[in-house]
Amino acid sequence: MRVGIVGLGLIGGSLALALRARHAVRGYDADRSTREAARAARLDVAERAVELLPADAVVVATPMAAVLPTLADLAPRADGAVLLDVASVRAPVDAFARETGARIVGMHPMAGGSAQGFAAAGAELLRSRPFLVVPTATADAPAMAVAGTLARDAGGVVTVCSGEQHDRIVAAVSAVPLALAAALALAAEEVARGRLADVAGPGLRDATRLALTPEELAVALLSLNAAHVLASLARLRALLDELERAVAEHDDEALRAILRRARETRGRLG
Amino acid sequence: MRVGIVGLGLIGGSLALALRARHAVRGYDADRSTREAARAARLDVAERAVELLPADAVVVATPMAAVLPTLADLAPRADGAVLLDVASVRAPVDAFARETGARIVGMHPMAGGSAQGFAAAGAELLRSRPFLVVPTATADAPAMAVAGTLARDAGGVVTVCSGEQHDRIVAAVSAVPLALAAALALAAEEVARGRLADVAGPGLRDATRLALTPEELAVALLSLNAAHVLASLARLRALLDELERAVAEHDDEALRAILRRARETRGRLG
Repeated sequence: MRVGIVGLGLIGGSLALALRARHAVRGYDADRSTREAARAARLDVAERAVELLPADAVVVATPMAAVLPTLADLAPRADGAVLLDVASVRAPVDAFARETGARIVGMHPMAGGSAQGFAAAGAELLRSRPFLVVPTATADAPAMAVAGTLARDAGGVVTVCSGEQHDRIVAAVSAVPLALAAALALAAEEVARGRLADVAGPGLRDATRLALTPEELAVALLSLNAAHVLASLARLRALLDELERAVAEHDDEALRAILRRARETRGRLG
Repeated sequence: MRVGIVGLGLIGGSLALALRARHAVRGYDADRSTREAARAARLDVAERAVELLPADAVVVATPMAAVLPTLADLAPRADGAVLLDVASVRAPVDAFARETGARIVGMHPMAGGSAQGFAAAGAELLRSRPFLVVPTATADAPAMAVAGTLARDAGGVVTVCSGEQHDRIVAAVSAVPLALAAALALAAEEVARGRLADVAGPGLRDATRLALTPEELAVALLSLNAAHVLASLARLRALLDELERAVAEHDDEALRAILRRARETRGRLG
């Protein structure tokens, strides 16, 4: 396929590098130095997003704030190209597709890391990662097939879910963990009185790594998906209540039972 | 020095392997197959804990439940040997030292991992990790010097703190993160309806890794240190309240401010 990719950061850059073995990939990034870095990696890079058309598919992998403007730019000129986007919150894209009729499918790789930008991108970032493939109201079977093919060709493992399911899941597996990581880092720093590095081991580092999420993505994950985030936080607080009660009452049996369930659950993630 | 080590699991085994280059190390473990594995790694291994005496220092690195019984076994025969222990909660050891007069210093490496036992032990586990060196009421200057020397010779970076400070810090950097990891894993699994592995990326894996903490250690961290854990959880909930309010009211400026502080704090951990 002829595949365009708008936004060559960590995710878009990794998609470009993963897909070029099997597809004619062309990329674009609003940042000139990113375009130069991508060219240095022998990617075909355009000077404007609309130059990625005509194509069979264009993937929008920009920061959240630029997703709808980019889709609005591409949609009138798409001429049959399937528009894909990696947005971490589906509701705004869903609404856009409904309003404009643009044929859009979400393709959200559950991948990332604390390093950012094209310099950190690589095909291996996406290998064996879950890709949530999410239809909008305008997604037909051929468009879904394109998304599935590209997700698999990028090395991903496809799970299809509705936009509503996606947003509920991402609240629980990305947004709430990020909020907790931030709260944990701040609470630990208070106790360590500015000397956290002197007392923190690998456990706290892992537990707080998501606090490194780039600010714009972090705000989008929490604020644009507020309803699901609040519901997920409420459920988390209920589980914390159970743990807290067991600790306060020295009910080691109850504590053990919760910890055992959690350990088994986490163990299945490998 | 002549250094005995009781308990050759992940931490005790790593201490033995890290210290043997500079000290005459002898180890013991209650589990026969662990003793055999340690001998296969060319460690000098005794058949009983008390055979580690006479020595200049004996490190108790058993599971929490065996720490006080082991100290009680060793103390009457110590004859000048400094007793060290790696217990993650200091209050019970403090009380024991006060009651018996045994000369004990805590030496708690902030290190670990999801793999357990001697098979996972290695000198590199401890390299550049914080070692909290914690006097008990009976610890004199020479005993503290022995603890500091062994911590540094094991590759650690020493921070001296009181037992009370230790327990407050460990509640915030180990116990509460562990409780949150458990709650997060269970909350996410509910939303994913038993298919968490199909939707979880590296972010959730990192955020929940502490849920893999061995059950006995996890229960000890939470239950034996209950007062500090509850205080630390209360502070964490207050920070979550702030985040939750900002999300609920779409107060992106406040959200951004909290996330930025957390990101800077976490960034200093490397």
